[in-house]
Amino acid sequence: MEQTDLIELLNEVKNGNISVDEAVLSIKKKPIEDLGFAKLDLHRGVRQGVTEVVYGAGKTPEQIKEITKALLANGQKTVLITRMSEEASKIMSDVSGFSYDPLSRVGIAGVIPKPTGKGKIIIATGGTSDMPVAEEAALTAMALGNEVVRLYDVGVAGIHRLLSHMEEIMSANVIIAIAGMEGALASVIGGIADCPVIAVPTSVGYGAAFEGLSALLSMLNSCASGVTVVNIDNGFGAAYTASMINHR
Amino acid sequence: MEQTDLIELLNEVKNGNISVDEAVLSIKKKPIEDLGFAKLDLHRGVRQGVTEVVYGAGKTPEQIKEITKALLANGQKTVLITRMSEEASKIMSDVSGFSYDPLSRVGIAGVIPKPTGKGKIIIATGGTSDMPVAEEAALTAMALGNEVVRLYDVGVAGIHRLLSHMEEIMSANVIIAIAGMEGALASVIGGIADCPVIAVPTSVGYGAAFEGLSALLSMLNSCASGVTVVNIDNGFGAAYTASMINHR
Amino acid sequence: MEQTDLIELLNEVKNGNISVDEAVLSIKKKPIEDLGFAKLDLHRGVRQGVTEVVYGAGKTPEQIKEITKALLANGQKTVLITRMSEEASKIMSDVSGFSYDPLSRVGIAGVIPKPTGKGKIIIATGGTSDMPVAEEAALTAMALGNEVVRLYDVGVAGIHRLLSHMEEIMSANVIIAIAGMEGALASVIGGIADCPVIAVPTSVGYGAAFEGLSALLSMLNSCASGVTVVNIDNGFGAAYTASMINHR
Amino acid sequence: MEQTDLIELLNEVKNGNISVDEAVLSIKKKPIEDLGFAKLDLHRGVRQGVTEVVYGAGKTPEQIKEITKALLANGQKTVLITRMSEEASKIMSDVSGFSYDPLSRVGIAGVIPKPTGKGKIIIATGGTSDMPVAEEAALTAMALGNEVVRLYDVGVAGIHRLLSHMEEIMSANVIIAIAGMEGALASVIGGIADCPVIAVPTSVGYGAAFEGLSALLSMLNSCASGVTVVNIDNGFGAAYTASMINHR
Amino acid sequence: MEQTDLIELLNEVKNGNISVDEAVLSIKKKPIEDLGFAKLDLHRGVRQGVTEVVYGAGKTPEQIKEITKALLANGQKTVLITRMSEEASKIMSDVSGFSYDPLSRVGIAGVIPKPTGKGKIIIATGGTSDMPVAEEAALTAMALGNEVVRLYDVGVAGIHRLLSHMEEIMSANVIIAIAGMEGALASVIGGIADCPVIAVPTSVGYGAAFEGLSALLSMLNSCASGVTVVNIDNGFGAAYTASMINHR
Amino acid sequence: MEQTDLIELLNEVKNGNISVDEAVLSIKKKPIEDLGFAKLDLHRGVRQGVTEVVYGAGKTPEQIKEITKALLANGQKTVLITRMSEEASKIMSDVSGFSYDPLSRVGIAGVIPKPTGKGKIIIATGGTSDMPVAEEAALTAMALGNEVVRLYDVGVAGIHRLLSHMEEIMSANVIIAIAGMEGALASVIGGIADCPVIAVPTSVGYGAAFEGLSALLSMLNSCASGVTVVNIDNGFGAAYTASMINHR
Amino acid sequence: MEQTDLIELLNEVKNGNISVDEAVLSIKKKPIEDLGFAKLDLHRGVRQGVTEVVYGAGKTPEQIKEITKALLANGQKTVLITRMSEEASKIMSDVSGFSYDPLSRVGIAGVIPKPTGKGKIIIATGGTSDMPVAEEAALTAMALGNEVVRLYDVGVAGIHRLLSHMEEIMSANVIIAIAGMEGALASVIGGIADCPVIAVPTSVGYGAAFEGLSALLSMLNSCASGVTVVNIDNGFGAAYTASMINHR
Amino acid sequence: MEQTDLIELLNEVKNGNISVDEAVLSIKKKPIEDLGFAKLDLHRGVRQGVTEVVYGAGKTPEQIKEITKALLANGQKTVLITRMSEEASKIMSDVSGFSYDPLSRVGIAGVIPKPTGKGKIIIATGGTSDMPVAEEAALTAMALGNEVVRLYDVGVAGIHRLLSHMEEIMSANVIIAIAGMEGALASVIGGIADCPVIAVPTSVGYGAAFEGLSALLSMLNSCASGVTVVNIDNGFGAAYTASMINHR
Repeated sequence: MEQTDLIELLNEVKNGNISVDEAVLSIKKKPIEDLGFAKLDLHRGVRQGVTEVVYGAGKTPEQIKEITKALLANGQKTVLITRMSEEASKIMSDVSGFSYDPLSRVGIAGVIPKPTGKGKIIIATGGTSDMPVAEEAALTAMALGNEVVRLYDVGVAGIHRLLSHMEEIMSANVIIAIAGMEGALASVIGGIADCPVIAVPTSVGYGAAFEGLSALLSMLNSCASGVTVVNIDNGFGAAYTASMINHR
Repeated sequence: MEQTDLIELLNEVKNGNISVDEAVLSIKKKPIEDLGFAKLDLHRGVRQGVTEVVYGAGKTPEQIKEITKALLANGQKTVLITRMSEEASKIMSDVSGFSYDPLSRVGIAGVIPKPTGKGKIIIATGGTSDMPVAEEAALTAMALGNEVVRLYDVGVAGIHRLLSHMEEIMSANVIIAIAGMEGALASVIGGIADCPVIAVPTSVGYGAAFEGLSALLSMLNSCASGVTVVNIDNGFGAAYTASMINHR
Repeated sequence: MEQTDLIELLNEVKNGNISVDEAVLSIKKKPIEDLGFAKLDLHRGVRQGVTEVVYGAGKTPEQIKEITKALLANGQKTVLITRMSEEASKIMSDVSGFSYDPLSRVGIAGVIPKPTGKGKIIIATGGTSDMPVAEEAALTAMALGNEVVRLYDVGVAGIHRLLSHMEEIMSANVIIAIAGMEGALASVIGGIADCPVIAVPTSVGYGAAFEGLSALLSMLNSCASGVTVVNIDNGFGAAYTASMINHR
Repeated sequence: MEQTDLIELLNEVKNGNISVDEAVLSIKKKPIEDLGFAKLDLHRGVRQGVTEVVYGAGKTPEQIKEITKALLANGQKTVLITRMSEEASKIMSDVSGFSYDPLSRVGIAGVIPKPTGKGKIIIATGGTSDMPVAEEAALTAMALGNEVVRLYDVGVAGIHRLLSHMEEIMSANVIIAIAGMEGALASVIGGIADCPVIAVPTSVGYGAAFEGLSALLSMLNSCASGVTVVNIDNGFGAAYTASMINHR
Repeated sequence: MEQTDLIELLNEVKNGNISVDEAVLSIKKKPIEDLGFAKLDLHRGVRQGVTEVVYGAGKTPEQIKEITKALLANGQKTVLITRMSEEASKIMSDVSGFSYDPLSRVGIAGVIPKPTGKGKIIIATGGTSDMPVAEEAALTAMALGNEVVRLYDVGVAGIHRLLSHMEEIMSANVIIAIAGMEGALASVIGGIADCPVIAVPTSVGYGAAFEGLSALLSMLNSCASGVTVVNIDNGFGAAYTASMINHR
Repeated sequence: MEQTDLIELLNEVKNGNISVDEAVLSIKKKPIEDLGFAKLDLHRGVRQGVTEVVYGAGKTPEQIKEITKALLANGQKTVLITRMSEEASKIMSDVSGFSYDPLSRVGIAGVIPKPTGKGKIIIATGGTSDMPVAEEAALTAMALGNEVVRLYDVGVAGIHRLLSHMEEIMSANVIIAIAGMEGALASVIGGIADCPVIAVPTSVGYGAAFEGLSALLSMLNSCASGVTVVNIDNGFGAAYTASMINHR
Repeated sequence: MEQTDLIELLNEVKNGNISVDEAVLSIKKKPIEDLGFAKLDLHRGVRQGVTEVVYGAGKTPEQIKEITKALLANGQKTVLITRMSEEASKIMSDVSGFSYDPLSRVGIAGVIPKPTGKGKIIIATGGTSDMPVAEEAALTAMALGNEVVRLYDVGVAGIHRLLSHMEEIMSANVIIAIAGMEGALASVIGGIADCPVIAVPTSVGYGAAFEGLSALLSMLNSCASGVTVVNIDNGFGAAYTASMINHR
Repeated sequence: MEQTDLIELLNEVKNGNISVDEAVLSIKKKPIEDLGFAKLDLHRGVRQGVTEVVYGAGKTPEQIKEITKALLANGQKTVLITRMSEEASKIMSDVSGFSYDPLSRVGIAGVIPKPTGKGKIIIATGGTSDMPVAEEAALTAMALGNEVVRLYDVGVAGIHRLLSHMEEIMSANVIIAIAGMEGALASVIGGIADCPVIAVPTSVGYGAAFEGLSALLSMLNSCASGVTVVNIDNGFGAAYTASMINHR
């Protein structure tokens, strides 16, 4: 039931064309889906004309291309595609402004927006092996209109590497701390920074890293306040929330 | 928005007392809770005037008593109280028709209804230690209007005990198979019976039983078709679903 | 010992051709398999002449073909083959009425029966990635004589998608709720519907989804009554039980 | 090395009282703790004169009382004490403005500040058993200067309870979603709201809830964007981060 | 159906008192439990007149006493009671030949039989904390008619303690190796002995012993051939199997 | 120090050629390896001239061939090779009496000995997918001199299949019960048979079978006495112990 | 066989009182325990007359007292008792030089030796709750003759607390890093120090700390070189190894 | 800020070219990274001109080659490359003194230093399958200047193999005990040796070995004192710590 349908129905009641009982029944029958829920979707997505996200995993190259083109045609300025196979990136040459990062498997079509957030999002990693996740986060944050500062390979086993970037850390509005293995980076940064820290455990490591479980538990148990956690390797999710906070 | 409120609103529209726009706004503002969702609740619960369930865990004896009395006063014929402490049962003497089973920690107030289901619900256990869970299931099923047949201590380590009840098993409309330790009962019954089998793992056992995990995994991996599983020790949940099936 | 054998034996006793002692020995020696257990098998399978199921995993294409042909020759109207490799499907061209669905890896030979169940089986999924499991369930349910309604991609992260199908949900006789990742779909549907809900966790997801463990635990802990659970990715098992309930 | 010490040292160098070499040595010897790190602590804590947090677990009643009094004497307007035993609360009668909530085991001394955040923090729970964790979050958020709205017992098994609070949800600046068992609340709210959602798994449940593991995994796998997770039962941590976001 | 009943039935057929059809029906109706399955029970238990086992856990002192007395009255020479509470042992003073071992919580009534096995059962433990499990095994083995040799506190961290008993180990017919923590005892003994070794992991240890999981996994992965494993702390089960082997 | 060396040494002492002190030193220096430990190896292996086992995993085809030939040349009558790749089997054509079973990946060279055990070893499986493990057990048992009876595909979901083999089960000296998924076979057989049952969990199954964990836990928790367990898929280990018992 | 026994035996051979054959037999019969293995024990323990360790768990107060007195009477200068109950400490008043630390539950009798190690052992903890484990380590190290420096409450969430102790860390010969929750302390210290770091995970924490599992995994995955790990809460074990290294 | 920069700055203050305030600001701005932390790195690495380690995993062959050449050019005498692919080793022919071990995937460039440690490092393995990990440890230890003794295939299932090397074990300064499956080697060696034992669990095994988890837990629970543990398959880490201890 579109809003116009409801207006029409109420007009019918007003005009006596249908009875009050009939109207009650009619409204009750489709109570939920028709009354404004589409609006929820608008709330949910980023404002029309800006960035739409396509989750590439499990979609064929052709499907990805088609959706991307349709979104752009529909007025989207930026289309972010995560978990996109290199194969899929190869057929996008005629998509406007398309670029692809094979490390993070992120594709972006259209234009990357100017930063509109209130501050900077710092993306820090424990090691260079965490870079695919970090770049997924970085490109997501940029596509959602944020200024990004990368602090890669600042793991706690060489604490001076991290501490030498104190100024950047202190100036951040949100920090994304990405680490595998022991995942201690989130706690150390959480103890230094005075902004929210979103921790991303990665599946980097071997043996008792158990595919990211070690880093995940470590981050959930951070004794630093202000640290929250997302799923293993979920760079996108961290950046999405970071952008939300940065646009509050 | 009660239905009467909606009628009133529509009458206001009909009478021209409020405009169509105002009515749209008013309806849209509380779209969900007020339009018929109460009906959902009625669908969900068992038919009005029959059985209502109170989850006793985490409620004080006084709260339980109060709720029970209110439900009875409101026309409920049967009130089922699960996970009820013995302490709580002690103050229920002035509640109409109250009885308490200390083994399963189930209390029932009012009258137990005559069976209205299509067939019998068989409740089988692997051992006598599974009886608290089994009785929770049995009393729940009875309170929800089902005929119950108990086959206790028919675990697979003495398969003849189970097989000697072949006739009951073949005559069941739904079977609840309750077992701890290796949880094999569900598979064996599932292979014999031609009706749905709801498996309840119990936390009975020690060591590698891991508080019911062994039985749970065992039941989920049953190679017999027609077996579904509920949470460890969840006798109530199994009986609730069994009753649903028995009243289809 | 076929029933005819028993009759013959008893006639021999009656006629004095063999002694009582010999008869006792003869009956005791093969007590179990021969007295009516074949009947159990008939109870267990769907009624003769209807649908037989072949589990394709671990069978060679030739074995599958041979079994299927034998079953059809034996009067089966429908043969359902689950977990069938695409390779196996390629050699079935001379099997009567054979069709193959590469997504769910289900093959069906013979004719799909007219629905004979009492109501509709709704098959709902959280996302499009759950479709292989969902289609295994859908095709199984259809092959077993049920009317199926598909509600795909109605995951709880966009609750309006699910709520807009309230009518279908309310009209179901059994619902199969299929979801990976957080597996919340089962609880939400379980809270809305007034029929049994069979939850199927899927191995869709990554990281802390732990190959379906997250969805499995989530579904087992559903706080909605009427929800039971089958093994991860077990679309067939859910549909088999759903069909049982729908034919009660 | 306080800043005044550094100034003094440099003045000594300027005046030629100590050599450059001696000054180099002196600065190098305590490079870290003395140069501005105290400032970090100020950044880290909430602004001087406002709220200080005492973690009560593992401290004696006397220690808690002493620390609290010292903080108040030192100019703190509010002192928040988490995980405080009832026993400890009993000896606090002479502490200015002390109140204690036995449910959440939170004590507050001094005055609760006026809300200074940008918006409202919604605290939603799946069930009433999650209330101890929720109240820890609520009282923490209030003590840190936030307006709090409580939506308790809106679990997804009765989705209309949640949906009837759509307006509150849409008006939130941050939401804390607290649930045990299947933990689906976070995903459903995450799908509706357009602000950050901090998910708190609770240890409520039994059997396959595995002391909160089920809810934890569920929340980490949320398919709604904008959801991050804290440790099981960590109401304080969620509120601390929520307050950070609300004061950005 | 007792064997005498079957004879009677067949006589009736022979005499023409009942028809063949009636006899078929009668035999088919209770096909399983009545035809010789009691015999299975006799096979299963230890030979009549010798030892019967009562699992004391979950039985009241009175029930245990009653069962024990009945068994003795019925001709059992030995009654073994495992997992018997000290409380239960206190009321057994009028039970013939009763003795109780508080360490292993094993009670024995009647007489301990002379060893009838072919050889000795060695019971070895890693440490003194494993003694309760070891004594459960030792007393079980003795009650079942075996000669038992105890080698306690011969854990592998002091390998010479074990090696100094080489002669006993080489002379065993079956060995029960009981250990907690790293559970290495089973492998070392398994590598030395040339008889079957039954490994019993115990819940002794702390931290990463995880209630016996560490020892359990260790023993399952033994690289010595001839080692099989029972449940954590299951001294009874190990001794029961050892006795079976010793009486082959 | 061979025994002959010791004799020689002692003769030297006797003859006064070396002093007592020198002899003490000499004996103490190599106390362990030289005094009879070689004998242990003879005890440990199956008697000289009979069967030697080669663990093929991680050895090159050439290494396997070389070892096998050396053993045969050394007088071994039978050489059993487990976990042998098909590739390795291809180069064995000039090895005396070599045969290879691709299903179980077992190779045997030389002659399979006549059964020398006291009774029969029954090898039972839950399904046909357990056959690779079962054949590893069967061929191992045969190579070690045992009579083997195979009862395949007698899983508990069709209990009559198992029960129809009651006579074989009752006549066994040892039973190896092999099953994946819920692993219930061990308990059911353990409850019927009166001989030791060695349970082998297999990695057959999917989802919550967790690579054999479900069957493993199930078997460890068997409520039937006389059941012991070996590692997942360890057909060899089960047969080795079974042969030990069968040769006691 | 004591060394004197061997000498005697060899003398008998020399003197012709016993034959070579008899001597061979006699030596072979007890080959292991008697030839020098006692020496191993001396190697193993700390040198005679110094420190002996009593593991108090599972011993009665009387047993502990008796052992302690015997050791002192036997010339031990120091007796260390770990996991000693307060109850046991109460009856030790007449034991020479006895002192008891209720926090770590360590008792020491006799005299604490002067440090004999090459350097200092630093004991660092993440929080004050780790102190019981830390004090067990500290007192153990002292009783074994080491100089101990305590750095408590230097957890990584306030990295400046740790860094302000850089000089102590740089001057250590061995460091014991003790932390619960995320256990990141070991990595940070491991990255700073240039000596071996022994990491002790503690069971401090709640929820996803899983009784120390989180810290354990974290420490095992440390990306700093030079870090090794002991069991959860095993302060004694860490100090024992640290002392070994410090006395190399 | 290099030390020279600080001197310059202080000279400027001395000369009055910059004010004290400006100097305070300048020093405070980069307090950490610039004041001596480079020195930490020197402490951390092995002394300049000796051995540098390159972690090959995740680096391209070209990157590895480039880094190695740069290090050698920079005066490193030895460059150790771990987890190096065979492919990478193929392009190193023009690197001075390069050799590659395909088993352990370790490459070494330059010269292997003469042993400078105080004693020998023994590297023991349970089986031949543990050799890749053992060789990583051995080559690391050698590249770091240690004398290495290999004791391979001395697993506890044939304890005499281990005991025959008693002398080597007793003469070690540090022992690295490497084992998969039940991981008992560490305990047995730990009980014999009087030097620190570093245990390395390996992922060797199958089924309930769970990729090294069994050995890991076993080693953490070692009841021998002096045993510490590193991550699964972390031969490098064990050798690095062993070398540290050996150079104390």
